[in-house]
Amino acid sequence: MEFDLLPSERLDDLLSHNLRIIQSREVFSFSMDAVLLARFAGIPKRGRIIDLCTGNGVVPLLLSTRTSASIDAVEIQPRLADMARRSVELNGLQNRIQVVEGDLREQAKLLGYGKYDAVTVNPPYLPPSSGDRNENEHYAAARHEMNGTLEEIVEQCARLLRTGGKATMVHRPARLVEIIAAMTRWKLEPKRIRFVHPHAGAEANMVLIEAMRDAKPSVRLLPPLIVYRDQQQYSEEIMEIYFGQERGKMDATAEELRADG
Amino acid sequence: MEFDLLPSERLDDLLSHNLRIIQSREVFSFSMDAVLLARFAGIPKRGRIIDLCTGNGVVPLLLSTRTSASIDAVEIQPRLADMARRSVELNGLQNRIQVVEGDLREQAKLLGYGKYDAVTVNPPYLPPSSGDRNENEHYAAARHEMNGTLEEIVEQCARLLRTGGKATMVHRPARLVEIIAAMTRWKLEPKRIRFVHPHAGAEANMVLIEAMRDAKPSVRLLPPLIVYRDQQQYSEEIMEIYFGQERGKMDATAEELRADG
Repeated sequence: MEFDLLPSERLDDLLSHNLRIIQSREVFSFSMDAVLLARFAGIPKRGRIIDLCTGNGVVPLLLSTRTSASIDAVEIQPRLADMARRSVELNGLQNRIQVVEGDLREQAKLLGYGKYDAVTVNPPYLPPSSGDRNENEHYAAARHEMNGTLEEIVEQCARLLRTGGKATMVHRPARLVEIIAAMTRWKLEPKRIRFVHPHAGAEANMVLIEAMRDAKPSVRLLPPLIVYRDQQQYSEEIMEIYFGQERGKMDATAEELRADG
Repeated sequence: MEFDLLPSERLDDLLSHNLRIIQSREVFSFSMDAVLLARFAGIPKRGRIIDLCTGNGVVPLLLSTRTSASIDAVEIQPRLADMARRSVELNGLQNRIQVVEGDLREQAKLLGYGKYDAVTVNPPYLPPSSGDRNENEHYAAARHEMNGTLEEIVEQCARLLRTGGKATMVHRPARLVEIIAAMTRWKLEPKRIRFVHPHAGAEANMVLIEAMRDAKPSVRLLPPLIVYRDQQQYSEEIMEIYFGQERGKMDATAEELRADG
């Protein structure tokens, strides 16, 4: 192997895309949220994209399979930014993905106002003071708004985007009202929303929301994304997202066979 | 029959509740939206409820099967208010449902600020100026915000409710952002939201939203309500809502049998 891994790090395959990613249970491993964000986000084929709260870089790596745009990936924690940078190099993507170590709240000032066509962000889900903080600093920063509140994150998305540019966020449905309120304050008009439900009969535990800078009101509510079709098995759509069209099609065929029988 | 129907009017059974309702194709017939609103709404067992934009009174009639509360039903069009009043009498509910002919925007002033435990409303879905207005006045008023904008309706809900009281609305998902923005401006905090999808793979075409006066932010996103399970047949849940538990159970059994076979 051409790269050294630090203690606790491992090298994982990133879904079906022939990408690899450095992960560490001690620091950060990507979740389904990031995968669904990278799939859902409205991004241009060319131009400039910025991913905030990038962690180990999973979102920009996945986005690189959908676009030729230049992607800036912002992470405030040095250890995670370093992991992201090494994963980018490992995949030979250093000409398309630039890892920026820094505070997301400063990026419009540093990188330029209105210079981006799209922003993606998988922010911490909990307010700074909520819940159990008796955990390691990396997990705490991934879960709690220690380095930027929801309002500050939305503000920064708006400042980074050109008119007509798109901000896409994954978050917890419990905070939907705050997200929409913050977005409309910052002239990001929600245009597409999709709720993710663990099962068809369960409440949503994730929301994907895409907003457009300076757009007119009117939002589409996409079909629910159901994660499990029964206690054990992922739904066809999740299989397709994780394992690619090939597997998705095979699975659909099995499903049709069952229905016919 | 003890009641006279006007020309064009007919007497319909109201679902499985042994209720009857006067309808008229010329003026107004209730839709699934009203039925789902009456089922979804958070209402108290006792106390005071008010239904705005009541039309022919379908929502208060259905609510009367779920509560012993006193229900005021507000309708601005004299012909519809008259239909609603006659339907209430026809069902012997005149001691529990009071039909109020008047402008919804005046009701807090007339009936009292903060005097209600719950408000329900199935408002017109379209802004005053949008779309095709080449239709009869009754349909136009049911579809377009001619007698109160979304903002004015939400304002009135807030003014009518006591602290902790609940406002429940059915509307089109396209206007979700406006609804949430208006609600939060008027201190109605959305607490439960449910999207209605014609099919499992289709975008939502209806949203049910319950908000609480002066509550803290945090909203639950309920499981999607799917209307049709295939091209022809209503889903089990819709069957249960329309035809009652008995039928719902029978249907579930048939479903299980199919799954077992």
